[in-house]
Amino acid sequence: MRRFGQVIGLRPERFEDYKKLHAAAWPEILDAIHAAGLRNYSIYRHEGFLFAYFEYHGPDAEFDRRMRDLTNAPRMREWWNLTEPMQIPDAARRKGEWWMNLEELFHAD
Amino acid sequence: MRRFGQVIGLRPERFEDYKKLHAAAWPEILDAIHAAGLRNYSIYRHEGFLFAYFEYHGPDAEFDRRMRDLTNAPRMREWWNLTEPMQIPDAARRKGEWWMNLEELFHAD
Repeated sequence: MRRFGQVIGLRPERFEDYKKLHAAAWPEILDAIHAAGLRNYSIYRHEGFLFAYFEYHGPDAEFDRRMRDLTNAPRMREWWNLTEPMQIPDAARRKGEWWMNLEELFHAD
Repeated sequence: MRRFGQVIGLRPERFEDYKKLHAAAWPEILDAIHAAGLRNYSIYRHEGFLFAYFEYHGPDAEFDRRMRDLTNAPRMREWWNLTEPMQIPDAARRKGEWWMNLEELFHAD
């Protein structure tokens, strides 16, 4: 299992839109997340930032393919066309990232 | 089960100290966290902030008592005497909070 902590900026004037959209996330998006092996996926807000925590439950060897499949899932591009303009990706993120992966400083099972 | 997302400021000049301390957290602290019913506890850093995610696995009726017991666990005050000066609690936190609890905008099991 791999754990992820991520951050991205959120445009303050879009907070209510973001919240409403995620409170009623489309079944296609939830299904795609589940099919990709992602579990226990939470998004929190602090001021102008969103924090995400999620876990990948699946074989390491399948991770890249399953993340690609997630990208290509039905309605995913449509979803991102709504969410991306609400977000401000961090300038320090790595190539290929939208949300920026954070360094884990502590973990206790 | 209850999920928590929390944030607190971290003094940038204390980042390395904080990281070292948490990379070799004392057994007493890890035991106390576990005894309190807290699981899947991760701390991430983003710039001057720490982001924590953890879960409480236990009866709702025992939550308050178990959090009090955690506060009073062996070496916990000693641990906090080290960590608190490294941290900058958010002015917007609720009464009784040190780390500030964040609003959950999304969750998918």
